Amino acid sequence: MKPIYVLNGPNLNLLGVREPHIYGHTTLAQIEAMCVAVAARQRVGVEFRQSNAEGDLIDWIGEARTSGCAIVINPAGYGCLSIALLDAVKGLPIPVVECHISNPLAREPFRRETYISLAATGVICGFGARSYELAIEAALGCVSRTG
Amino acid sequence: MKPIYVLNGPNLNLLGVREPHIYGHTTLAQIEAMCVAVAARQRVGVEFRQSNAEGDLIDWIGEARTSGCAIVINPAGYGCLSIALLDAVKGLPIPVVECHISNPLAREPFRRETYISLAATGVICGFGARSYELAIEAALGCVSRTG
Amino acid sequence: MKPIYVLNGPNLNLLGVREPHIYGHTTLAQIEAMCVAVAARQRVGVEFRQSNAEGDLIDWIGEARTSGCAIVINPAGYGCLSIALLDAVKGLPIPVVECHISNPLAREPFRRETYISLAATGVICGFGARSYELAIEAALGCVSRTG
Amino acid sequence: MKPIYVLNGPNLNLLGVREPHIYGHTTLAQIEAMCVAVAARQRVGVEFRQSNAEGDLIDWIGEARTSGCAIVINPAGYGCLSIALLDAVKGLPIPVVECHISNPLAREPFRRETYISLAATGVICGFGARSYELAIEAALGCVSRTG
Amino acid sequence: MKPIYVLNGPNLNLLGVREPHIYGHTTLAQIEAMCVAVAARQRVGVEFRQSNAEGDLIDWIGEARTSGCAIVINPAGYGCLSIALLDAVKGLPIPVVECHISNPLAREPFRRETYISLAATGVICGFGARSYELAIEAALGCVSRTG
Amino acid sequence: MKPIYVLNGPNLNLLGVREPHIYGHTTLAQIEAMCVAVAARQRVGVEFRQSNAEGDLIDWIGEARTSGCAIVINPAGYGCLSIALLDAVKGLPIPVVECHISNPLAREPFRRETYISLAATGVICGFGARSYELAIEAALGCVSRTG
Amino acid sequence: MKPIYVLNGPNLNLLGVREPHIYGHTTLAQIEAMCVAVAARQRVGVEFRQSNAEGDLIDWIGEARTSGCAIVINPAGYGCLSIALLDAVKGLPIPVVECHISNPLAREPFRRETYISLAATGVICGFGARSYELAIEAALGCVSRTG
Amino acid sequence: MKPIYVLNGPNLNLLGVREPHIYGHTTLAQIEAMCVAVAARQRVGVEFRQSNAEGDLIDWIGEARTSGCAIVINPAGYGCLSIALLDAVKGLPIPVVECHISNPLAREPFRRETYISLAATGVICGFGARSYELAIEAALGCVSRTG
Amino acid sequence: MKPIYVLNGPNLNLLGVREPHIYGHTTLAQIEAMCVAVAARQRVGVEFRQSNAEGDLIDWIGEARTSGCAIVINPAGYGCLSIALLDAVKGLPIPVVECHISNPLAREPFRRETYISLAATGVICGFGARSYELAIEAALGCVSRTG
Amino acid sequence: MKPIYVLNGPNLNLLGVREPHIYGHTTLAQIEAMCVAVAARQRVGVEFRQSNAEGDLIDWIGEARTSGCAIVINPAGYGCLSIALLDAVKGLPIPVVECHISNPLAREPFRRETYISLAATGVICGFGARSYELAIEAALGCVSRTG
Amino acid sequence: MKPIYVLNGPNLNLLGVREPHIYGHTTLAQIEAMCVAVAARQRVGVEFRQSNAEGDLIDWIGEARTSGCAIVINPAGYGCLSIALLDAVKGLPIPVVECHISNPLAREPFRRETYISLAATGVICGFGARSYELAIEAALGCVSRTG
Amino acid sequence: MKPIYVLNGPNLNLLGVREPHIYGHTTLAQIEAMCVAVAARQRVGVEFRQSNAEGDLIDWIGEARTSGCAIVINPAGYGCLSIALLDAVKGLPIPVVECHISNPLAREPFRRETYISLAATGVICGFGARSYELAIEAALGCVSRTG
Repeated sequence: MKPIYVLNGPNLNLLGVREPHIYGHTTLAQIEAMCVAVAARQRVGVEFRQSNAEGDLIDWIGEARTSGCAIVINPAGYGCLSIALLDAVKGLPIPVVECHISNPLAREPFRRETYISLAATGVICGFGARSYELAIEAALGCVSRTG
Repeated sequence: MKPIYVLNGPNLNLLGVREPHIYGHTTLAQIEAMCVAVAARQRVGVEFRQSNAEGDLIDWIGEARTSGCAIVINPAGYGCLSIALLDAVKGLPIPVVECHISNPLAREPFRRETYISLAATGVICGFGARSYELAIEAALGCVSRTG
Repeated sequence: MKPIYVLNGPNLNLLGVREPHIYGHTTLAQIEAMCVAVAARQRVGVEFRQSNAEGDLIDWIGEARTSGCAIVINPAGYGCLSIALLDAVKGLPIPVVECHISNPLAREPFRRETYISLAATGVICGFGARSYELAIEAALGCVSRTG
Repeated sequence: MKPIYVLNGPNLNLLGVREPHIYGHTTLAQIEAMCVAVAARQRVGVEFRQSNAEGDLIDWIGEARTSGCAIVINPAGYGCLSIALLDAVKGLPIPVVECHISNPLAREPFRRETYISLAATGVICGFGARSYELAIEAALGCVSRTG
Repeated sequence: MKPIYVLNGPNLNLLGVREPHIYGHTTLAQIEAMCVAVAARQRVGVEFRQSNAEGDLIDWIGEARTSGCAIVINPAGYGCLSIALLDAVKGLPIPVVECHISNPLAREPFRRETYISLAATGVICGFGARSYELAIEAALGCVSRTG
Repeated sequence: MKPIYVLNGPNLNLLGVREPHIYGHTTLAQIEAMCVAVAARQRVGVEFRQSNAEGDLIDWIGEARTSGCAIVINPAGYGCLSIALLDAVKGLPIPVVECHISNPLAREPFRRETYISLAATGVICGFGARSYELAIEAALGCVSRTG
Repeated sequence: MKPIYVLNGPNLNLLGVREPHIYGHTTLAQIEAMCVAVAARQRVGVEFRQSNAEGDLIDWIGEARTSGCAIVINPAGYGCLSIALLDAVKGLPIPVVECHISNPLAREPFRRETYISLAATGVICGFGARSYELAIEAALGCVSRTG
Repeated sequence: MKPIYVLNGPNLNLLGVREPHIYGHTTLAQIEAMCVAVAARQRVGVEFRQSNAEGDLIDWIGEARTSGCAIVINPAGYGCLSIALLDAVKGLPIPVVECHISNPLAREPFRRETYISLAATGVICGFGARSYELAIEAALGCVSRTG
Repeated sequence: MKPIYVLNGPNLNLLGVREPHIYGHTTLAQIEAMCVAVAARQRVGVEFRQSNAEGDLIDWIGEARTSGCAIVINPAGYGCLSIALLDAVKGLPIPVVECHISNPLAREPFRRETYISLAATGVICGFGARSYELAIEAALGCVSRTG
Repeated sequence: MKPIYVLNGPNLNLLGVREPHIYGHTTLAQIEAMCVAVAARQRVGVEFRQSNAEGDLIDWIGEARTSGCAIVINPAGYGCLSIALLDAVKGLPIPVVECHISNPLAREPFRRETYISLAATGVICGFGARSYELAIEAALGCVSRTG
Repeated sequence: MKPIYVLNGPNLNLLGVREPHIYGHTTLAQIEAMCVAVAARQRVGVEFRQSNAEGDLIDWIGEARTSGCAIVINPAGYGCLSIALLDAVKGLPIPVVECHISNPLAREPFRRETYISLAATGVICGFGARSYELAIEAALGCVSRTG
Repeated sequence: MKPIYVLNGPNLNLLGVREPHIYGHTTLAQIEAMCVAVAARQRVGVEFRQSNAEGDLIDWIGEARTSGCAIVINPAGYGCLSIALLDAVKGLPIPVVECHISNPLAREPFRRETYISLAATGVICGFGARSYELAIEAALGCVSRTG
């Protein structure tokens, strides 16, 4: 079975360091380990990546179209206002779950303008690092139903 | 341990019948069974309720404040534009997970104005009936961490 | 043949008493009599109800789904801003005619935000108590064409 | 008794041909015949006109002020955003019923900006060609009450 | 003399418990006692009620129209965005004073959209439980001037 | 010397009849006589015209470009929201004075969106039929200064 | 004990003369007398002032910071849109009660943009000249609780 | 007969010096002379004043209420966004003509928000220093009609 | 083969004369010659028309529906804000290319509200008179592909 | 002669694969061949590039400033909301034609906010892969006129 | 050489006392001393003034036009929403530097509407009392370059 | 001591070439030299970088978090609308000064939406290349105070 892509947007390389009162103390490496463990239970591998460049995220989504079984994406600051990301996700033949560590709907109003949500299969947010675990479960659930 | 409250808003009594192309064919009774099963794995009972009246939802949230360990709420049409529900959820001492069968962020713009999200611990939407299962998992995860 | 449901929203119990310069002097009981008379011409009975509670209106719309041949609804103040009512009406297998005693399009701008109109078969407003008669005619006309 | 004016705005000359999935297959000539029949029951003649020019509609409304007993107007695309039509209708001493074949409130948001509705006696929309019949009934009902 | 109605909207049953840093530690029962004391000075009785259901508030306003000398209403979350409550209050023959424990004008912007204020005689907010005392004084002052 | 064009938009043929509480009792023929008298003092003739058709107004503005010394225009309902009229007036080599019988800035907000004002030399409004006299004076003053 | 400052904004010098159908027939001198009487009951003096200049109001608020026990301010037209007044009131160590003779929330929408309300302890409006009496009571109530 | 008040708002003391490409080369003293000449033809004196302080303008409008026959006001930058000036002008028993040297409707959008226009008898703008002459004519015309 | 309709909206009769710094020095007659030459290369005739009346444009679009192979339309000022033109173009069985001499997207914001673009096959703008040549090429290309 | 730059934004590498019902079945390689053929007719070479990174597009525009004769750019999702791209294009000494395969003006409203259009010489959209051919023709036409 | 004007708007007389967590503990007298010291290094005197009256600020800007070499202005609450101040600064022949102790762009959204910034040479904000020193340096730098 | 990072966003590599009437003739290399000179006075080194890629800027901000003493950033076109940059700057333990060559507050309205300003220590703009010198001074001043 193809791996699940877990894609991380800008500033997430600094998780655990940057604004821990909002984003918690777990590092991205720890989250990667959590994701691998959850996916392994269903015998699925994980492509776990992070970039501060919007173009990289779009490249990877295009790659996952043929190489992945599903996508979990934490678009961070590029989730809002990016139509290029929306277009990358629109019409994908595999499920895409948007996830966030914090609950952006409960923060500044400009964080509500998330174009990518318009094309995501579903959204999970607000549960800290656990949002990733739930998102992988949710994404793989979609795969097994449609696969 | 106290039970988890699973509260359902207007029109959800007709799940499976009303607009199945959007909301699927699973009935609310089937969802209740799924919820009971998931919670039972963690030895937690479920208070599962539905009402078309906003006041009932507020009554039950107030009741859960002292009688429940967490709340999963699908506010349906009352999630948008209801400040009374927001006030009911604000400052609750227990976790509240908002869940939706469809992904309201991908639908009409007026479904994005969800005041209740401002106070929810987290949000899970777009996974059909499975949204409830994930929401219960997420809510109980919050309980065990803080409990 | 199943009866037609004529549903009345908040404050309409005070018709004839409340702001007669806007809503006229006809009482709701008189309107009920007018509705019964018009429907009787086509040998259709009338379920005529009023409530100040939004939940009751949603309950009755759900009931009419299987027990009625059509719905005439004067949502009054709940016509605006209620997504729950919109959801109740969306995808109904029977015609729904929204009617108003006054012409809300000619009043305060906030009365123009009528979500229920998005799902109504048609709208009739501005003709005082006669709006009900025309609405019943219109609704039964839709029934006979599709029935 | 003076005739009732039935005025039709832009593109309605192509009724039955243009977008029949929205506007139906009835032609304007057939609608005229329906209108004449309904009005004849109350011994009222019909002045039935159509123009693609906004100025013609304004001319005719001015003419109806003294030569007609009432106006039924389907302003089509000129119903929105035309303040000149609103001014033509404002303060008319005879009833004016706005009618539409489809329900513009259920379509694109820009169709909700109908200035003419601010001055219309009432509005009837969404019942296909029958909207005209109901509108004539409604208009003549207003005439007989005030006449 | 008829009693004054003091009506309380959603979540106010939890006053003193819910978010005391905003709403204070006084309970609704204590406020009722304060209201009775203030009104008694002017030999007026108090009908003191609370409900989480919007329909109940509308029922009681309709009842007060004939059975009360004035209304003090803390609409809480239903003060915003409820056109049904506005309609209930509009054109009442008795004074209506809107009161709030906190100052909603100083809080989130969406708390400024208070339709009920459009029809209230006056507004008193921001003085904690004392807002009720001042509101009763103000309402009875209006009664004595017009009575 | 070339004549001054005085152009009148929709519904002004009914001046004195239509809504006299807003527009007064003077007829358009009387205003024409007033305009001729004022212009005659400066030995200028008047081309006085009215049409309910936006296209006529644009035709006449194009004509005045070469045949007139100045334009006074009461665009009435076409002053708002008409970009075609704005374009007709933009870059004219002769002065254009917009005039109104009432003060549209003091009426409904949608009357403030007057595109034509963006290109007018000046605006005079609110003085009833006298607005025309002042506008001719103002326009001819501009001519004499630049001529 | 320090006196209470009662500050009056623009045009209030003409109270009783200007638009009495909105603001009533009581003059500012009479209101001053009412204020003095109410405050005297609690043995507090009154600094009662009026100015049409925004700068004066800001000067006096600064003065009251050290010389007054509380402020009652009717900012009139400067209550809306004045950030300078907001800044003057923000962070004051004494209570500030905003009061209005009419209910600005029930008037034109632009009267709702009251920046000063963002920093006021509370607001009292709509009770005519009595608004001042209630405001002094309210303000002194705050003083005694915190004093 | 009482004099006409010609009131000038902020920065107009620098007319002729400040931005002459917009406001022209005529100084305020020259405009005063023009105003005196025009008014003298009708045997009316002129109270001509300028201030950079909004409060002065309000003081003078209040003074003109009893001491003047009419007001011509160039509110300059205070015409926009000042509700205090609007309130000063509202309900005055004498005519008030707003005048501007340039045409603010043709400039930046924020210059269109002129609250004072809501209460002015009429507006004259765009004719340079001649706007004053026309405004005095217009104002005195109103006086003679109502006087 | 049927001719291609090239329709020109308001003020275009003055091309070459009106604001040449924006619209260039080419006249409409010259553009017609260019269009005829381009179409002739593909052996297609041209119906080239201009009117300042919106109704004429709608008439001609209706005529082209059966008599033309395609439409090129420069709606000029009627491209913005005209829902009647949008409706005329919607659902046409032949291609419609909107063209503009200047680039309206680069001008005032109100020129961006072009309803007709919602239904056009494509848009070409900004290339001066050459926009017409490109539009004819584009339109005939669509014809040959679908023909 | 310098080559023409044809720049392609995000997701266009997947043309023919991604959402073919919107973007068609032609691949980007095929479009490159079409572009080379069209430019070759005028003896101009083509620099054809694609990137998912906004920075690359800006780099290439800067490069084309000195190395290219013109630019055709399909900014895809970066056309909207990117001020950096607008700044890159603003003030370029060579023509820039924006082109789109679909007609973004006919799609979701957020696709209308195209900052790059503010600085483009012209726009061509809606003709599928042919949009590129027309854009090259248009751009080279601008070059030959100014060259 | 002429002095530099340092003008301070409303509430700044209370610097060091009012909201020190936002504005710091430095008093205006201390800031004056800092300004004098910085300007003295370049042998320039300082006219340092403060007023709570908008008119005073406008007076002083007009005075500085001929008597000063540059202006540093902290408009405080009058920086927002004051078109009169904007007009005072527009077209000044000397540099004007707007400065703020805090960073208003990082505070409430209404603090972003700073009309004066539209005409300022530059803006410096967020550096506490040091903002003044930097602003004087910046202003004098502009003087020496243009002088 | 750690160096100060001076980061430059899109298109700034073309400074001196691109739109010199707005951005001046100084090149980025010259600005780098100026920055080095200013910082050297305080014995601080400079990391001076430019990129057209948003991701690079975010990378460098993350790097500066541990390797720099302060940041001066000219985000150019990425300053507006980029939430990713805002997130990068938020909660940094070192001062961040936003600087601009021109004054974006005085330009197009969309340049006012600068999310990065929400988290910047301060802003300096409008002084051409000197903005950088002032920004370095300001940033180092913050360092010495907190260091």
